Amino acid sequence: MNNIGFRRTHMCAELNEANAGELVNLSGWVQRTRNLGSIIFVWLRDRTGLVQLVFDEKDCDKETFALGESLRGEYVLSVQGKVSLRDEAAVNEKLKTGRIEVFVRKAILLNKAETPPIYIDDDHPDESETVRMKYRYLDIRRPSVQRTLRMRHKILQTLRNYMDGQEFVEVETPILTKSTPEGARDFLVPSRLHHGTFYALPQSPQIYKQLLMLGGYDRYFQIARCFRDEDSRADRQPEFTQCDIEMSFVEPEDVQTVVEGAFEEVFRTVKGIELQLPLERITWQYAMDTYGSDKPDRRFGLTIHDVSDAVRGCGFSVFAGAVENGGTVRGINAKGLAAKISRKEIDALGEFVKTFKAKGLAWIKVQEGGAVQSPVAKFLSEAEMDKVLQALDAQPGDALFFVADKTSVVLQSLGALRLELAKKFDLIDKNKYDLFWVTEFPLLEYDEEEGRYVAMHHPFTSAMDEDVDKMETEPGKVRAKAYDLVLNGIEMGSGSIRIHSSEMQERMFKLIGLPHDVAWERFGFMLEAFKYGVPPHGGFAFGVDRLIMQLTGAQSLRDVLAFPKAANASCLMMETPSTVDPEQLKMCGIAVVDEEK
Amino acid sequence: MNNIGFRRTHMCAELNEANAGELVNLSGWVQRTRNLGSIIFVWLRDRTGLVQLVFDEKDCDKETFALGESLRGEYVLSVQGKVSLRDEAAVNEKLKTGRIEVFVRKAILLNKAETPPIYIDDDHPDESETVRMKYRYLDIRRPSVQRTLRMRHKILQTLRNYMDGQEFVEVETPILTKSTPEGARDFLVPSRLHHGTFYALPQSPQIYKQLLMLGGYDRYFQIARCFRDEDSRADRQPEFTQCDIEMSFVEPEDVQTVVEGAFEEVFRTVKGIELQLPLERITWQYAMDTYGSDKPDRRFGLTIHDVSDAVRGCGFSVFAGAVENGGTVRGINAKGLAAKISRKEIDALGEFVKTFKAKGLAWIKVQEGGAVQSPVAKFLSEAEMDKVLQALDAQPGDALFFVADKTSVVLQSLGALRLELAKKFDLIDKNKYDLFWVTEFPLLEYDEEEGRYVAMHHPFTSAMDEDVDKMETEPGKVRAKAYDLVLNGIEMGSGSIRIHSSEMQERMFKLIGLPHDVAWERFGFMLEAFKYGVPPHGGFAFGVDRLIMQLTGAQSLRDVLAFPKAANASCLMMETPSTVDPEQLKMCGIAVVDEEK
Repeated sequence: MNNIGFRRTHMCAELNEANAGELVNLSGWVQRTRNLGSIIFVWLRDRTGLVQLVFDEKDCDKETFALGESLRGEYVLSVQGKVSLRDEAAVNEKLKTGRIEVFVRKAILLNKAETPPIYIDDDHPDESETVRMKYRYLDIRRPSVQRTLRMRHKILQTLRNYMDGQEFVEVETPILTKSTPEGARDFLVPSRLHHGTFYALPQSPQIYKQLLMLGGYDRYFQIARCFRDEDSRADRQPEFTQCDIEMSFVEPEDVQTVVEGAFEEVFRTVKGIELQLPLERITWQYAMDTYGSDKPDRRFGLTIHDVSDAVRGCGFSVFAGAVENGGTVRGINAKGLAAKISRKEIDALGEFVKTFKAKGLAWIKVQEGGAVQSPVAKFLSEAEMDKVLQALDAQPGDALFFVADKTSVVLQSLGALRLELAKKFDLIDKNKYDLFWVTEFPLLEYDEEEGRYVAMHHPFTSAMDEDVDKMETEPGKVRAKAYDLVLNGIEMGSGSIRIHSSEMQERMFKLIGLPHDVAWERFGFMLEAFKYGVPPHGGFAFGVDRLIMQLTGAQSLRDVLAFPKAANASCLMMETPSTVDPEQLKMCGIAVVDEEK
Repeated sequence: MNNIGFRRTHMCAELNEANAGELVNLSGWVQRTRNLGSIIFVWLRDRTGLVQLVFDEKDCDKETFALGESLRGEYVLSVQGKVSLRDEAAVNEKLKTGRIEVFVRKAILLNKAETPPIYIDDDHPDESETVRMKYRYLDIRRPSVQRTLRMRHKILQTLRNYMDGQEFVEVETPILTKSTPEGARDFLVPSRLHHGTFYALPQSPQIYKQLLMLGGYDRYFQIARCFRDEDSRADRQPEFTQCDIEMSFVEPEDVQTVVEGAFEEVFRTVKGIELQLPLERITWQYAMDTYGSDKPDRRFGLTIHDVSDAVRGCGFSVFAGAVENGGTVRGINAKGLAAKISRKEIDALGEFVKTFKAKGLAWIKVQEGGAVQSPVAKFLSEAEMDKVLQALDAQPGDALFFVADKTSVVLQSLGALRLELAKKFDLIDKNKYDLFWVTEFPLLEYDEEEGRYVAMHHPFTSAMDEDVDKMETEPGKVRAKAYDLVLNGIEMGSGSIRIHSSEMQERMFKLIGLPHDVAWERFGFMLEAFKYGVPPHGGFAFGVDRLIMQLTGAQSLRDVLAFPKAANASCLMMETPSTVDPEQLKMCGIAVVDEEK
């Protein structure tokens, strides 16, 4: 018996009118059959798509016809047949190959199949995800999954070639690495050769890439697998892929230019979209003030405006009090939505902002005539109300919403509210790709619980040159050489220039209340390494999975991975994680602990 | 303070005579300094190499000159200076940039460095490897390591582009996967979310790649990280990189053609060597008979010849007995080495072959006159001796060596002996790249201990069509659709066509004595998957690290990895594996077991 039937001459969906009259060999899976008695139509599927086969009693021998009759979905078939143009009436425009069909001369059944537990097509979106994940090896036969995984390949290939062209060297860093001091989310790997000790899977190659700069590699990148043992969450994967970049002798703009170029290349190659470079750069302060978010979705308006000055000392105590206590009053203008938002919906939005610690939501509707409808109207003078309306450029038909509180609460609430309104009223242009930088993040943020400043990114992030002098006097105002890349309101990745001077590093540790000896205990290996001539360096890392989601329109991270884990980090297909032989644990020097103890 | 000094305009070793007169900015590390009083020569190093800087009192201000005086090895420096042609007498031919030097105008010290614990050059090969590994971040500054890691990048990039061009899709398969039944060498990862269960790191993506074929991906590849928890061995790494390939609807030749093409591309691109395709294919039987090895080094002769017929029933009982008992007598001809191998050395070679279970080594020296010197001469008739000499094409000056035993012992001993002789007498042409296929491996081998046949590759390997009929009657003679690629006596990789029919799989399990229910218990998930229309498929995998070793001439796997582990699987640099916080273990539901118990 031949192993592969007829050696393929063509792929199914590559056939077209130009092949008419040719004798071709095809191999693939039976998508569906339609038996008309003396003629049987069979859709054959391979990685390129579908083509219609015709088993015609008049055209093939009895054995072949009988084989045609026996075919069922997902049978594996090899055929030899003649390509024929379809009659105009028989053309199937839905099929890429719909203008031709292949009259089978001979056929060999390569394998049978049981009826699959899921539909092998994209027409059944309500198929249970649990079943799809259990039979992922069948699920990935669907054309949409094939497209996504092929695009994933294309994106990574494009990235690699771009980085290579920019003289970056891809270096593979270890997966078996060391647990970090903050390693609560590290996956551990017990060592069989050294009982009682453990490797950890890397949450990122951060340390290695900085060592590569120390090692003189100058321009490094890696498409790197990373791991984070997070609690169950809807759309998290315990392992993910990251494009990791580090450069020496650079300022933020140098890193940004490379990253932009890479994104430009990917967008052009896989989506045919021309990005305008350089990408827009907005400061963290501007993003927070305007959108209430450090990763704003700018595909719609609803920007935030400060009305603190307008309501200072006004009769509405919530407003006046907030300003008096050093907080602010800010609002957004839901343009033209006054008539669309009911009182009940406003109440719901009020409850919504409370989940972000706002105490409530004040609102003003500007009616068609220009009259103002608002529970707070009676507390404001006409002049105050005018100033407020002016600050938000209010026009008849607009609905205005305000939060009064300390600034962080105001911004977070209004930032969330604008997203909520945009979703509710479908304000987002889904065809838009808004890619831009958020720069000048604060170096530190104050941790109320710990009563001290903590590093906003990580304690190796460099302060902006202009702000270095303020590190001890006004630490909260020091900006970092840190930058995020944002796409459609999603943080694609983040980067920074690192501290390369020991003196500066000591100052940083002092700022975050880390005593010298504790710092050495925790980061000693890095600090030791940094004694030997570390160059100025900085980098960037972005999640490849999330980028692919955006570019393919996938709904979940699971959809952009060939073999994803479910939300609880288990693989339904292989039933992983699983128990193992106690002997195996013993060899590793560990035992499972009874949870009751 | 500026972060990066003067923005680089050039890389150090890219400067040449054409740049003479230009004002350039360079950044890098001080390789060495030579202070002549009023003039200081400094070699500056970056990723491209070295260039000579000149600090001349007459040419730069006092501050700059003072900085020049303060420089020490590995200081990080940014300079602005003028490129100048050297006098003919001052040309340094050893330096790529030896015809020019850069007269420094201004310099900024970016960082100081303590004296490194190792030499940052390739002139100290006797440097302790332990120290080099501990300070790997400095060790990788050496030009030879830079070259190797850059060539590694180039090789992988070339492979990826080649496979992409052949319409293969790279699919990332999980690192957190399932422990296999034969998983004694699996690294385990305890699950924090599901106490008492474990992931395992993959020894290869074998199952996933077969599922991808089942899933219709047709042509898959991956540069995949794999893991094997082996006992300490000199040149093993617990994690390694493999180029993994799988194809559907193929026979062995199809897979081989793709692999050959990939190697051709790599050899051309990184070595400028044109491989002649198709590569030579020799059968396993031929390789064993001729070289006593399934991965022969063919860069030298010393082939094995069967003299069983010549010595059948002769007076030397060791020879005659071996033949009588169904074994063989075979020999190799150490051409022209008779005078070079002393009696003492022959004794040592006798001991050597005993480590391969041979009982002894018979020898014949053909002296210059043609007379024969040999302890066995007296037991052989003249005719027998003639036949033996003829079988080995013996000429005056040759030394012949023989082993008599059962065939497997004879071949293994002589295979090892020829390698030993080649090494001892430097017979290997180190500039030769001998790349070829060994095909038609046996499907099964008899396991004396278990008293049954076992799969030589794995139990999913397909038998050759011609031999399928013999599976039950002469299992030992069934050849598999299995093939290895060998380079200079080293197995680069191996592959096979897999079984895709359930009936054939059952026959295979029966052959290796695996009852149906045990097979299902062990491989149930795969067997279940294979019910749904699996296409004929096969593939190949080769170790990237070993290939890079061959192409770079590296002496150890450690040399081709940026951050390798030492022989005991530990990282001396980061001190990995390490103990972890007991709290962290508790979160994972495990405890370290006291080894005494």
